[in-house]
Amino acid sequence: MDYFARQQRVQETLRSQRLDILLVTHLPNIRYLCGFTGSSGVLMTTKDGSSFFTDGRYSEQAREEIKGAEVVVSKKSPLIAAAGRLAGPVSRGRNKAPTGRTRGRRKVVVGIESEHLSVAARSSLQRLSSTRAVSTGAVSTKASLRDTSGIVEKQRMLKDAAEIAQIRAAVLLGSSLFDGAVSSVRSGATEAEVAAELEYAARRAGAEGMSFSTIVAAGPRSALPHARASSHRITNGGFVVLDFGVILAGYCSDMTRTLYVGRPTTEARLLYKTVREAQLAGVEAVRPGVTVGAVDGAVRRVLRRAGLARYFTHSTGHGVGLEIHEAPRIAAGQDVVLQAGMVITIEPGIYIEGSGGVRIEDMVLVTGSGCEVLTPTTKELIAVE
Amino acid sequence: MDYFARQQRVQETLRSQRLDILLVTHLPNIRYLCGFTGSSGVLMTTKDGSSFFTDGRYSEQAREEIKGAEVVVSKKSPLIAAAGRLAGPVSRGRNKAPTGRTRGRRKVVVGIESEHLSVAARSSLQRLSSTRAVSTGAVSTKASLRDTSGIVEKQRMLKDAAEIAQIRAAVLLGSSLFDGAVSSVRSGATEAEVAAELEYAARRAGAEGMSFSTIVAAGPRSALPHARASSHRITNGGFVVLDFGVILAGYCSDMTRTLYVGRPTTEARLLYKTVREAQLAGVEAVRPGVTVGAVDGAVRRVLRRAGLARYFTHSTGHGVGLEIHEAPRIAAGQDVVLQAGMVITIEPGIYIEGSGGVRIEDMVLVTGSGCEVLTPTTKELIAVE
Repeated sequence: MDYFARQQRVQETLRSQRLDILLVTHLPNIRYLCGFTGSSGVLMTTKDGSSFFTDGRYSEQAREEIKGAEVVVSKKSPLIAAAGRLAGPVSRGRNKAPTGRTRGRRKVVVGIESEHLSVAARSSLQRLSSTRAVSTGAVSTKASLRDTSGIVEKQRMLKDAAEIAQIRAAVLLGSSLFDGAVSSVRSGATEAEVAAELEYAARRAGAEGMSFSTIVAAGPRSALPHARASSHRITNGGFVVLDFGVILAGYCSDMTRTLYVGRPTTEARLLYKTVREAQLAGVEAVRPGVTVGAVDGAVRRVLRRAGLARYFTHSTGHGVGLEIHEAPRIAAGQDVVLQAGMVITIEPGIYIEGSGGVRIEDMVLVTGSGCEVLTPTTKELIAVE
Repeated sequence: MDYFARQQRVQETLRSQRLDILLVTHLPNIRYLCGFTGSSGVLMTTKDGSSFFTDGRYSEQAREEIKGAEVVVSKKSPLIAAAGRLAGPVSRGRNKAPTGRTRGRRKVVVGIESEHLSVAARSSLQRLSSTRAVSTGAVSTKASLRDTSGIVEKQRMLKDAAEIAQIRAAVLLGSSLFDGAVSSVRSGATEAEVAAELEYAARRAGAEGMSFSTIVAAGPRSALPHARASSHRITNGGFVVLDFGVILAGYCSDMTRTLYVGRPTTEARLLYKTVREAQLAGVEAVRPGVTVGAVDGAVRRVLRRAGLARYFTHSTGHGVGLEIHEAPRIAAGQDVVLQAGMVITIEPGIYIEGSGGVRIEDMVLVTGSGCEVLTPTTKELIAVE
């Protein structure tokens, strides 16, 4: 991964947004910028370079993983350690003013990630970083916090070649599990058993874990878009929604297929066909230059024509990468313009309360001229006994 | 679960902290107060009652699960929907002023959860809730946000009888997996394979999932306190740290044991013995009236006497319940006083970079007179071939 180029792009944003520092606290953003995979850290990026703060549990791991940043291991929490650095020089010579310049009492403008930093963390950062440093004859800086929004997330929407390769690998691993999952779906099995088999196979195939709680939703429960696998038993005569993803080298996959247990009724076939048409229309609409709102519209148009639009109760999709849900959101009114290198899901569904539901989801890469469906799994209706 | 009593305790806090409303946005707190297990919702608790806001994906689930609160399903995000309610009356009669009182332009003081609400979310809440409502002849309210800290978390530290029963069940399920895990640890297996077997067994035994990424850390990697199971192969002559937990009915378990692969060296035995002594000293110190800092001190005293205190690089433990890490933190300088009904971990470790590490962790319930170790698994050093 080209951490250097990624940090450079942040530095360009620092300049264009007139910030001296960006304090990155969202872990996936930290991983993206310097490779750290642990759960406790803060990355401070200045125009001149970056420092990564972590605690003692991660000292060895940080030194192994971090690229393009000085590693500071502190007994304090990483945020408090970073705030201490912002507060200006202390008696130790290596803690120079964060901008690397010495201009007397100039204010340092510090961007914080407003979508990720909690109100309480911002308050303590403000308090700690504005504490006047005991003067040691050196410069005394004072930090002024400024809320920023999605600086790193915006970068992360466009996947580079190395990321696309990782995402492809994750998607293929995910869909390689599908046949096994189908064979574990049978009348009498619980949803949780199906999930157990699937997750076991994922681990054995090399997945680091699942990218979210596996959804196995059978019968009337298939009408719950976010039902986790439960102890509910699969019975004959109903849909089973399988929605799952794996994590491989940090990157997520995400796919949904819907099976039918028993012989599908005419109604069930029609429902399935409509969702598939809507999904294909969504994929068809994906190309550079189109807004995500237009993709959502293409999906809903099909459902509206079938008189089923009111049963589609969520958005059409989302970006996928280091996080299972990342920018952009594919939804009505969203005006992000698709660009080559974005990876998104297209996942319409129809949910009829008390009866059942169908959802079909692929991951899709926006290419120079249109898109490539990354998920190779069939979208034909599969009926199992 | 007695959601009514829990909400009543929040209402008492509203009174004592002079708040009209608490806006609960942290999902485990929401689950604790009204039973919702989904991933999108906001609970608004007033002195008179509660309203729960969610989106269309969760309409059916919310109606099934929510206890003690009116359910509001909105096309907007739950926070925006809640903010709309705060902004005062709109044209629909059911949206009365949130305090239920009509005192003209009185300000409504709304507590937000400062440790969980993001800076950006607080800003939009402020913006949306202070928009003057179009007057319909009714009262016009204006919300004034106030940062609160740990109101629900403080309640959650003390587990009620139903919670303790759930936690016991989760702990027993977790430790029932240990023998299987031991038998999958052998020279040549990868850490990930051991984790796969363990997690599969967990699911089959009825776990909803794991409470955190399973740690299987072999050989020199056992010196990384937070190493996830990797593709690293276990070899003869080293420790293997197994740290894992399950989720059962929402409640987490957490345990760590350390094995030795091959015949333990004298040094390895000594290291293990020291950590075990430290762990037992920690358990011994747990009783009502003692501060968590004192428990941490009891653990460190043993390690200091052995000259190994500097290798213990994390805190002694943490509360466990609906979250794997919750209050109180068992660490130096922390002054929370233990009370009967708290459930915490005691988990000292020694980590020697490049060589290996040992950690032993139990879950412990504070009782009226001392404590009860919930984790039944042996702490003798187990050597496997």
